[in-house]
Amino acid sequence: MNIGLDMMGGDFAPLEAVKGLQLYLSNGTRTASLFCIGDESLVKPLLEEYRVDAPNIHLVHAPEVIGYHEHPTKALKEKQRSSIAIGFHLLATGKIDAFISAGNTGAMLVGAMFSIKTIEGISRPVIATVLPKINGGTGILVDAGLNSDCKPEQLNQFATLGSLYAKYIFNIPNPKTGLMNVGEEEGKGNILAQAAYPLLKNNQQIHFIGNIEGRDLFNDKADVIVCDGFTGNIILKMAESVYDLSKQRGFGTDAYFSRFHYENYGGTPVLGVAKPVIIGHGISTAKAFNNMISVAEKMIESELCSKITGLFKL
Amino acid sequence: MNIGLDMMGGDFAPLEAVKGLQLYLSNGTRTASLFCIGDESLVKPLLEEYRVDAPNIHLVHAPEVIGYHEHPTKALKEKQRSSIAIGFHLLATGKIDAFISAGNTGAMLVGAMFSIKTIEGISRPVIATVLPKINGGTGILVDAGLNSDCKPEQLNQFATLGSLYAKYIFNIPNPKTGLMNVGEEEGKGNILAQAAYPLLKNNQQIHFIGNIEGRDLFNDKADVIVCDGFTGNIILKMAESVYDLSKQRGFGTDAYFSRFHYENYGGTPVLGVAKPVIIGHGISTAKAFNNMISVAEKMIESELCSKITGLFKL
Repeated sequence: MNIGLDMMGGDFAPLEAVKGLQLYLSNGTRTASLFCIGDESLVKPLLEEYRVDAPNIHLVHAPEVIGYHEHPTKALKEKQRSSIAIGFHLLATGKIDAFISAGNTGAMLVGAMFSIKTIEGISRPVIATVLPKINGGTGILVDAGLNSDCKPEQLNQFATLGSLYAKYIFNIPNPKTGLMNVGEEEGKGNILAQAAYPLLKNNQQIHFIGNIEGRDLFNDKADVIVCDGFTGNIILKMAESVYDLSKQRGFGTDAYFSRFHYENYGGTPVLGVAKPVIIGHGISTAKAFNNMISVAEKMIESELCSKITGLFKL
Repeated sequence: MNIGLDMMGGDFAPLEAVKGLQLYLSNGTRTASLFCIGDESLVKPLLEEYRVDAPNIHLVHAPEVIGYHEHPTKALKEKQRSSIAIGFHLLATGKIDAFISAGNTGAMLVGAMFSIKTIEGISRPVIATVLPKINGGTGILVDAGLNSDCKPEQLNQFATLGSLYAKYIFNIPNPKTGLMNVGEEEGKGNILAQAAYPLLKNNQQIHFIGNIEGRDLFNDKADVIVCDGFTGNIILKMAESVYDLSKQRGFGTDAYFSRFHYENYGGTPVLGVAKPVIIGHGISTAKAFNNMISVAEKMIESELCSKITGLFKL
């Protein structure tokens, strides 16, 4: 399998991407071909310095970079030699099977939706985040922030996409799927949650277990939790702050609280587009890059995108 | 001042309410007259057992109780001799200056809105919760769960109400007020947040500091954070779960994480109704009851309801 990695994305690019590759290579069992897309003059010396020189590492020169504050559509159009534009070109033409970047999130989404395309039947793609369960397990929250305003049908599709992600990437069979809400009973919640509930209840592709409350995010009630992207983004950032708080209070090394650190999951796939696209956190470190490569491998191996395409064709 | 306390509300009623009174009396400087409303046959022996017999403690017999799962409007109408109905009667007729209950929340809200009335000019009352700041300070979140679907104008009123609450009850002068959102810049967010932003920006009654993200809930960016009740309820319950998680990991006694325990703030006033009404958590303990009495005292002393009335008359 061939995986493209944007070396220029993230606050610590290209250094942390290079160190992420080094970490990846240190685990001998992982043998994807990695296409490192970035400015050769910056990336090559670092690859040499960190001895990232295995036969499965290939450097793809991209002389331009899309900055964090550039307008996504405009930047992608004008900077066709940027690492993100080249990454999507390689992905669209089949030269790579997955593309990873911790760069401009907007440009990654525009690229995913217009160069790779949303899968037929899917209203809007969605991103996910990982919730560390107190029992050691892993929960998935969708939408983690892509769609601030949602229709009930979209939440229902997020439920299906999140369930497939939990099943194929996190190996959770028949994931328990809950609707983020303010009370347990059907009929609770805002207009969106009230309207989404019966759709989720009748969705044969998921194992719906009802409403989930804020206190249930880290327990074992649900494996997949569905909400709009506004709510999801607030939950995601609040969870990230729990790690910071625990660190400030001297518990940052606690086996549980350290799992709130974003680098443990690295990034999120854009679920609902035709090929694996993974977006990383702006502050991605080596560990985060390594984990994103791992998610890309699993997405390719499991043929998650094809499985989603098949399901929504029905 | 005269404060009414529903002895029959809460999972551990009337015992924890009695113990809360005992705690209140143990602090000699607090001299409100307390009207303990509840079933005499249950409350009196406990008051005796716990030696709650100061001259400022008065027992008001209420032979009926509104249960947790009763329909609020129906129960209030049919159980006129219940502790909640009697409490609102005493408050409406001026026999008490504030009413506290950890009982049926719906009945408390119906009582507050129909027996006490919403202040003229206020679209919907709102409830608040306390956010423990890592620097030792206190943040206020409104709406903590009363109004799942909100209009932009309502969020703007919540901002004013929350600011007054922060100023008069928590002694925060000119409280920094932020809009809960998914990004810092104006224009970010869902349709509601986008429409509320300019209203908050032009609100002369608050010190608006812009958008607040999930990661900022516990830092010093804002003293008052405004959101719809759906989002607020999820944040509130998630914050409560942070305490549970820290306890499970053995950090429950940490000076900071222990502040996530609900009993430290006890309950929330219903902001926007004409007289002080305080709703407690169903699992209220002695400490929570004691804190609710303290909030009631501050609301009466500061004449918060009159100040709100004056401001919205303009």
